[in-house]
Amino acid sequence: MNWWQEPCQNPSIEAKQQAANHQLQLTKPTGSLSELENVAVQLASLQNTDQPNIDFPWITIFAGDHGVMEENISAYPQAVTRQMLQNFTTGGACISVIAREYQAKLQVIDCGSVGEAYEYAGVERYCIAAGTANFTKTVALTESQCIEAMNLGRKSVEDAIAAGASIYVAGEMGIGNTCSASAVACFLFNEPAEKLTGVGTGIRAEQLAHKKQVIDQALALHQDYVGQDVFKALCAVGGLEIAAMVGAYIRCAQLGLAMVVDGFISTVSALVAVRLNPAVREWMLFGHQSAEYGHQLLLQALEAKPLLKLNLRLGEGSGAGAALGLIRLACRLHNNMATFAQAAVIGEKV
Amino acid sequence: MNWWQEPCQNPSIEAKQQAANHQLQLTKPTGSLSELENVAVQLASLQNTDQPNIDFPWITIFAGDHGVMEENISAYPQAVTRQMLQNFTTGGACISVIAREYQAKLQVIDCGSVGEAYEYAGVERYCIAAGTANFTKTVALTESQCIEAMNLGRKSVEDAIAAGASIYVAGEMGIGNTCSASAVACFLFNEPAEKLTGVGTGIRAEQLAHKKQVIDQALALHQDYVGQDVFKALCAVGGLEIAAMVGAYIRCAQLGLAMVVDGFISTVSALVAVRLNPAVREWMLFGHQSAEYGHQLLLQALEAKPLLKLNLRLGEGSGAGAALGLIRLACRLHNNMATFAQAAVIGEKV
Repeated sequence: MNWWQEPCQNPSIEAKQQAANHQLQLTKPTGSLSELENVAVQLASLQNTDQPNIDFPWITIFAGDHGVMEENISAYPQAVTRQMLQNFTTGGACISVIAREYQAKLQVIDCGSVGEAYEYAGVERYCIAAGTANFTKTVALTESQCIEAMNLGRKSVEDAIAAGASIYVAGEMGIGNTCSASAVACFLFNEPAEKLTGVGTGIRAEQLAHKKQVIDQALALHQDYVGQDVFKALCAVGGLEIAAMVGAYIRCAQLGLAMVVDGFISTVSALVAVRLNPAVREWMLFGHQSAEYGHQLLLQALEAKPLLKLNLRLGEGSGAGAALGLIRLACRLHNNMATFAQAAVIGEKV
Repeated sequence: MNWWQEPCQNPSIEAKQQAANHQLQLTKPTGSLSELENVAVQLASLQNTDQPNIDFPWITIFAGDHGVMEENISAYPQAVTRQMLQNFTTGGACISVIAREYQAKLQVIDCGSVGEAYEYAGVERYCIAAGTANFTKTVALTESQCIEAMNLGRKSVEDAIAAGASIYVAGEMGIGNTCSASAVACFLFNEPAEKLTGVGTGIRAEQLAHKKQVIDQALALHQDYVGQDVFKALCAVGGLEIAAMVGAYIRCAQLGLAMVVDGFISTVSALVAVRLNPAVREWMLFGHQSAEYGHQLLLQALEAKPLLKLNLRLGEGSGAGAALGLIRLACRLHNNMATFAQAAVIGEKV
């Protein structure tokens, strides 16, 4: 058995029931905080506490490059992957601002970008491969590369837990990675590119048509994996950062750390994780519904109801990060609102 | 001319254009922060600055009781209005927790609740009337009462500006006030109760049918106001807190303070304000789409696209308050993300 198939922790049924009962006693019409109540109750269950909190959010950005960039499928050049790694750690990226806003740790892991060796302060550099192989010609990742990437995700979660993190966000950076994510999604759903491919960072209509052709070409090449073990599909058309997120999500559930899933690419990883180990699902909160075409199908497959729908399509864990404020508020309301008894407010019609 | 018809400030077109240009230079795919970009750009325009902020949010809760409570239209007894006033100031209510979370001032104004004189620390008590009159029998408010209530809203905004507030949220408390708000909305749209009446704090199906009958009865009694000056409709079936919010929204626009509109009742006030003085609309942000039936129609009439949709239906300004976190984040991203030039990131395809 591979580590990612090992059992997950069980969320506390008792804490969940207690939290749901507590919500009924707070000074508000029954159920009137709806999704915010649900978040607090879920988190109470996952953290096995009557005082859920996200006092210490942990955000890890996994980066990787993509061989399929040879096929001209992105609006940005590949060099941007590395340029953004530096932007993350020097504080100028969207997720950097979000991490400061919510007092989160921001970990940056380069799983395998294209280029020479480098030292960027704050970036943990691994070089599993200098980007994936072009999946229109061969498998993107060998099985051992894919496992190495999943292990990076696993280690990141172990770092987070050792540091005392209260919630985990995985984000990604990798020019071309919506193309890879769409291809993985096509394998998971056994659907053509048309159903699950969007504009990513913002390609034009004719480029989108080309991107779909590229994905369909890859699906044809790797058709033996359709309906097979999703691990093989991940190797065939996945990415290093996508595999790393799969490993991270699974490890969160195995070690009992709540996580917030981000947008399209992260949700592809989430769905792979859940297909590999279904009990992972219970440990997931969903930050937002992205503007990327196909995200809604992924969310439906996970029966997920994200907190935000702001048409974000930036990646970097930014939608999950933006949702941290609401999750924190949900906790504070749960923990700090007065009960009807405490406030001497009549709770129902006399 | 009444004060509420006096002109509003003009948002800065130049600041808006500068903010929109600045967004294009930030290290992210063009438009990828979508609604968060729109909020930052709007706020830059309203605050006439290149560094929009909501460092000091001001929240005012306007409370009032309703004579139509004689008709048995709510799930909660009238005494709850005053009980909640104390809960606001002692810190146990939802909006109290939200105010602490976002370092907001929480002002509590009793425009006219039912009962004896009292002294609650932190509550500004006015007694325009001990609740409105039962609008199934007579007008809810005399014209002078309605103006007095609007003046309370006006004064609250002047307090906020004198204190240096950067954004204004009005919320309401008043058992029975969804009934009044629905009746006002029916006048504004010239529609029967069926179209604009929901369960409020949570009445059962048979009570909802009764509530609709009560509203239709009031519409018949006051039918002369249909299609007339909305001020008269506000007097006929409105509430003291609803009129106060109308005054507050208009004053915000006249003095140039951005505001966040909350849920169903607040949006009825917002629509009255805009009908009385259309230029008020530009100064509004919208916090959330509530679960209350009819809210969507109101939002459509205002061409409003709220930030959140979490099925909240609590009132107290809570949905607008919950949105403050996202608005603050939108400002921080606008102000603190690096530009492509600063971060040496390639901004477009080479």
